[in-house]
Amino acid sequence: MQANAQDFSATIGDTQTRRFKCVVAYDGTDFCGWQSQLGGGSIQDYIEEKLYEILKVKVRIQGSGRTDAGVHARGQVFHFDAIWKHSADSLLKAMRAGGDLTVQFLSLEEVSADFHARFSVVGKRYIYRISKQYAMPEFARYTWSLGGRSLDIDAMKNASKIFIGTHDFKAFSANRGNGIKEDTIKTIYKFDIQDLGDEILIITEGSGYLYKMVRLLVGAIIQCGNGRLSAEKIANVLNAKERTNIFQVAPAKGLFLDCVFYK
Amino acid sequence: MQANAQDFSATIGDTQTRRFKCVVAYDGTDFCGWQSQLGGGSIQDYIEEKLYEILKVKVRIQGSGRTDAGVHARGQVFHFDAIWKHSADSLLKAMRAGGDLTVQFLSLEEVSADFHARFSVVGKRYIYRISKQYAMPEFARYTWSLGGRSLDIDAMKNASKIFIGTHDFKAFSANRGNGIKEDTIKTIYKFDIQDLGDEILIITEGSGYLYKMVRLLVGAIIQCGNGRLSAEKIANVLNAKERTNIFQVAPAKGLFLDCVFYK
Repeated sequence: MQANAQDFSATIGDTQTRRFKCVVAYDGTDFCGWQSQLGGGSIQDYIEEKLYEILKVKVRIQGSGRTDAGVHARGQVFHFDAIWKHSADSLLKAMRAGGDLTVQFLSLEEVSADFHARFSVVGKRYIYRISKQYAMPEFARYTWSLGGRSLDIDAMKNASKIFIGTHDFKAFSANRGNGIKEDTIKTIYKFDIQDLGDEILIITEGSGYLYKMVRLLVGAIIQCGNGRLSAEKIANVLNAKERTNIFQVAPAKGLFLDCVFYK
Repeated sequence: MQANAQDFSATIGDTQTRRFKCVVAYDGTDFCGWQSQLGGGSIQDYIEEKLYEILKVKVRIQGSGRTDAGVHARGQVFHFDAIWKHSADSLLKAMRAGGDLTVQFLSLEEVSADFHARFSVVGKRYIYRISKQYAMPEFARYTWSLGGRSLDIDAMKNASKIFIGTHDFKAFSANRGNGIKEDTIKTIYKFDIQDLGDEILIITEGSGYLYKMVRLLVGAIIQCGNGRLSAEKIANVLNAKERTNIFQVAPAKGLFLDCVFYK
């Protein structure tokens, strides 16, 4: 994608290209995920079309990482390079025009050329929402409804300590199917489980997360909470450092990319 | 509708018809409102289809009243008459099968034949949600986003006192276009405005509400809050007891039928 951005700036000639960092929130329900798809329908496609309308040239945006189909964001970050002769605020205003609140540009600022939305990331925070019973309709698109299965919250909190620290999380990853080998060593700083009564919030901060990792961590913790997996079993599978199918994948709809941290 | 239910029970012969009261929550976004439509697509149509699948006969349901396209409910009430040889709980379980959370049956109980979801109503509570700026994507379907227009909350609270009590609310109604004359005298017990920081909640309880009345009351209060209508003007229009187009109609998506009260 960087290559594309550079090609584009090269064709512009002597006019100054500026780099912009944007924070965006979105409802992922009706998108096929962050990553651009041939047929369109991704959040990236949506944003690039929006920028094309404003800038009249094709601009590739670079996200902090992908989110899966159905996953939401409160603070996804992307950057892009563009020729723009006015202020960042006026560009933000143009991006917000139309008032669609499904994909919402929260902030836009000019950054130096060495800022990179993906490579400059030092950490991310995800929030996962769970309803113990059934979420009311207005929350149903944004939480995992467990339908009243009983949960041992203390057992979940206890098991979540296994995740804290630096580990090889290969057991909590799925194959992306693109042949690219990811570094499976990640550091989890936080994995808080908040029991709010009807709802449970899981808040996790880490250096980075593998494909489907948050959903597998949440899935394993819920399996522990309803007695189908012990903390010992979870620890053993983590230590085996191999992909497995014993963990359920928590549904996409409960997951929010809350914040991307940079230096 | 009662006629239909009676016809149906007549065809069944000697088997006992029972009346059930159901509380239902729904996300109104993708429905054309509560009221049954020829082409389907209403919440009533959806529920009647669900009951047809279970009971194998057509059953008309009677709601406490209609909600407009896009309006949500946390506690809409309807009743219906049906032959059912098992418990109300088992019928509720059958109604919940499939697990669609968009229309959610919260409770079901057998009631006496003199209970009527519409005629037995003694009051209703509506909640209206407003975002001062732009609601985050996960709330955007369920709140009115004002986009940062400044609001004088004290002026709004002051003006809302005009609504409390028994009045002819014809000025706060729209023509349903069906030629039916409604009694425009209603009693408003409560019209609370809660300033939660980013969000404003308006909670109103009353004996009943005319077509679009809550949305017109909320629209007028927001017009007052941003200085376009004075409390005196609102009071004068109320007292004129005639329909007018000076009040904006607050969007359907912020409105929730929260609770229907019975004796």
